[in-house]
Amino acid sequence: MSELTHFDSDGSARMVDVTKKDATERVAVAKGVVTMKPETLRLIGDKKIAKGDVLGVARVAGIMGAKNTPFLIPMCHPLNITSVSVNFKIDEENSKVEIESRVKIFGKTGVEMEALTAVSTAALTIYDMCKSVDKEIVIGDICLLEKSGGKSGLFKSKHP
Amino acid sequence: MSELTHFDSDGSARMVDVTKKDATERVAVAKGVVTMKPETLRLIGDKKIAKGDVLGVARVAGIMGAKNTPFLIPMCHPLNITSVSVNFKIDEENSKVEIESRVKIFGKTGVEMEALTAVSTAALTIYDMCKSVDKEIVIGDICLLEKSGGKSGLFKSKHP
Amino acid sequence: MSELTHFDSDGSARMVDVTKKDATERVAVAKGVVTMKPETLRLIGDKKIAKGDVLGVARVAGIMGAKNTPFLIPMCHPLNITSVSVNFKIDEENSKVEIESRVKIFGKTGVEMEALTAVSTAALTIYDMCKSVDKEIVIGDICLLEKSGGKSGLFKSKHP
Amino acid sequence: MSELTHFDSDGSARMVDVTKKDATERVAVAKGVVTMKPETLRLIGDKKIAKGDVLGVARVAGIMGAKNTPFLIPMCHPLNITSVSVNFKIDEENSKVEIESRVKIFGKTGVEMEALTAVSTAALTIYDMCKSVDKEIVIGDICLLEKSGGKSGLFKSKHP
Amino acid sequence: MSELTHFDSDGSARMVDVTKKDATERVAVAKGVVTMKPETLRLIGDKKIAKGDVLGVARVAGIMGAKNTPFLIPMCHPLNITSVSVNFKIDEENSKVEIESRVKIFGKTGVEMEALTAVSTAALTIYDMCKSVDKEIVIGDICLLEKSGGKSGLFKSKHP
Amino acid sequence: MSELTHFDSDGSARMVDVTKKDATERVAVAKGVVTMKPETLRLIGDKKIAKGDVLGVARVAGIMGAKNTPFLIPMCHPLNITSVSVNFKIDEENSKVEIESRVKIFGKTGVEMEALTAVSTAALTIYDMCKSVDKEIVIGDICLLEKSGGKSGLFKSKHP
Repeated sequence: MSELTHFDSDGSARMVDVTKKDATERVAVAKGVVTMKPETLRLIGDKKIAKGDVLGVARVAGIMGAKNTPFLIPMCHPLNITSVSVNFKIDEENSKVEIESRVKIFGKTGVEMEALTAVSTAALTIYDMCKSVDKEIVIGDICLLEKSGGKSGLFKSKHP
Repeated sequence: MSELTHFDSDGSARMVDVTKKDATERVAVAKGVVTMKPETLRLIGDKKIAKGDVLGVARVAGIMGAKNTPFLIPMCHPLNITSVSVNFKIDEENSKVEIESRVKIFGKTGVEMEALTAVSTAALTIYDMCKSVDKEIVIGDICLLEKSGGKSGLFKSKHP
Repeated sequence: MSELTHFDSDGSARMVDVTKKDATERVAVAKGVVTMKPETLRLIGDKKIAKGDVLGVARVAGIMGAKNTPFLIPMCHPLNITSVSVNFKIDEENSKVEIESRVKIFGKTGVEMEALTAVSTAALTIYDMCKSVDKEIVIGDICLLEKSGGKSGLFKSKHP
Repeated sequence: MSELTHFDSDGSARMVDVTKKDATERVAVAKGVVTMKPETLRLIGDKKIAKGDVLGVARVAGIMGAKNTPFLIPMCHPLNITSVSVNFKIDEENSKVEIESRVKIFGKTGVEMEALTAVSTAALTIYDMCKSVDKEIVIGDICLLEKSGGKSGLFKSKHP
Repeated sequence: MSELTHFDSDGSARMVDVTKKDATERVAVAKGVVTMKPETLRLIGDKKIAKGDVLGVARVAGIMGAKNTPFLIPMCHPLNITSVSVNFKIDEENSKVEIESRVKIFGKTGVEMEALTAVSTAALTIYDMCKSVDKEIVIGDICLLEKSGGKSGLFKSKHP
Repeated sequence: MSELTHFDSDGSARMVDVTKKDATERVAVAKGVVTMKPETLRLIGDKKIAKGDVLGVARVAGIMGAKNTPFLIPMCHPLNITSVSVNFKIDEENSKVEIESRVKIFGKTGVEMEALTAVSTAALTIYDMCKSVDKEIVIGDICLLEKSGGKSGLFKSKHP
């Protein structure tokens, strides 16, 4: 089995050395889901009722979250990401919000952690904005959907 | 239905005013789950094989993540949290790591977002430390388990 | 004339000692103005044209900016602010956006720098969101409008 | 009229995609003005009286402020700026301090927000250092003076 | 022998629980030493030669460093420190700069890490400001001189 | 004698302009020493007694500290470091822990401050983790061991 590259041969954690890797265009797409009560979802979806833009605030938080990745995840490289978008889809039938983030860079290493951190931060923000009316919100299904660029080539997740 | 307190009557987002609330002892407990391939879980569980302490790094990240909450979640109050712990349970049968965080404060507002951010950051760190061997890791079931202190009293989640 | 309290008797900068001051409820209100071309203001005001919520993003930035104050302004105390709001008024006649922030705390020192930093960060964000269509935007009139709480009592600015 | 590039076609805020832009040398120069009482200005200008170096502290804050830009302004790219200077001119006649910042980079996008944030942070710091003697200080005239590098070429402001 | 309180009975790191401790006035004093070539020290000491204020910049960095402590040292509590000063003494005979920092709080836990971080950050800044002329600078003797307040009472170091 | 490059000809501090420097592979190695009581060192070295992994936590802190360098040291450039490792050697005879960090980049300027900040942050963390049993810990001998890459070529310290 392959190795955990974030440890050296003595088992010490380290920031993986990417000094000699080629700078290429890299993209990562991640998703996540926030499940809540139907009444809570209605407050988010119909701004006429609640008057507030929950998803607008969560989008800003998600984009800023991507930039905070190297200060949150210990072994992540500080990177000059060149694009971040965070989008939402309201699924009334299953009473949930789907979050998808897309992060790009021209650099020496991939941006999947940035995409996942964007999704997590947006999801936590939705939770925070709605927790006064719903304490049973659940954040889940956070995973990488797609990754391209770099030596390992294209990855497409088997997750639906 | 109750209101989203993070918006004023015009629908503008705001940090909720807690100036006049009483300072009391408050606790929040949150959980989350990281599901992965059985081989990946084995690398985490058996430090003799992988030699590296994935969960030790994730615990540090989770504790620091709790302190970063007000800089990640836009409407969260900056708080002097007085205790944070992050613990892990390896569930081999279901090939997952369960994360539980517990945060305390003596203050004017609750710390559920701090507990949830600790769990999320620890989960993302496990992902990062293992992504070289497993790109299909999924983070899920992030929710509040328990909350006490303050006017709203004890909350216990219905989640298992 | 009074002294610059942020320096000691040798002229060395220092964080003023507030250890023995009483904790009281304190409020600060600050304002600022962003002047731009009429066409730019129209893009901000009429979300049907531009489709994007410039002021919504700026409000989030302003609220988060208030929390970053002690990490930006060297001699500011780290504080547990208990309330932040940032609001906007569009003045079509003078082609400008007026920003007003209000910050509260129950603590040992005032929050005027937090209110001013909220205004400045919101103003810079409006600039950033509009700079692709208007490079001649000017940020001005940033000042304290009001301050209450603490030994020095109520202050009301002479600024209009 | 041109578009607000920080929004997509649905009006969702995003970090503009600069992945495919060329890295070039880019410079931005911004200015701002802090107006105060003549006695306050004298304390700043004559270090023999006040003994403290207000502008020295403000310069450090401004330079560090430039580096904090991507963590303050939501849609700004994280960048490796290669030069920052912040300078001051005391204008006794009009009882004000003029601030000018100059920021450089070799990169894919401009640094005007970094220059403006440097000016704003320096101005707020002057305010903070002097607020014990003058609560009527006003920060204004913050604008971009000049910008070069990149596809849009040289920009020179019409502001004096 | 006493225990390392930052670990629980399973050996897991944690932020020590201080929820039930009394808030009292607490002070910590720390020191450190930066040793360099005599010519380098002269550049620092005689601002007429070098024209720049190395120690002024280092003081600002030290004060801001104290505020960054909880984001640098994993198990440190976020605290509302109420006073920080950083002072320097030039020792020409031994060709070194002595740094002393003093931090205060009214709170539930001590501030020795804040005082030590202030000293370390000031020392690193002196290093950075002088490294173009002296690569053999050594930072040393960083220790706690004094600590008071709280249940453990007064501590005075045996270090000279 | 050479000049302090972090000041301009008027003595104003500035971030040195590296815009036109070539990007090259650069490495810096720094060290430091933490001296403590023999009983304290035994608690660190023998995880069976203390059950906690002091050095594991300190390593994570050191690696994250390297990434925080530009936000701590005022004139440091923000950089995309490509590798960080922090290692420890227990010296029972002299009752101390030796810390060595190694940082790499492909960039326009060196990373000695990042290596020194990694060492300092790891040292402060060891202090914090052990201060409940030993208040007389001393951090010292922090210096640059080696630096390569860039126009100035290889530097090897005379320190042992």
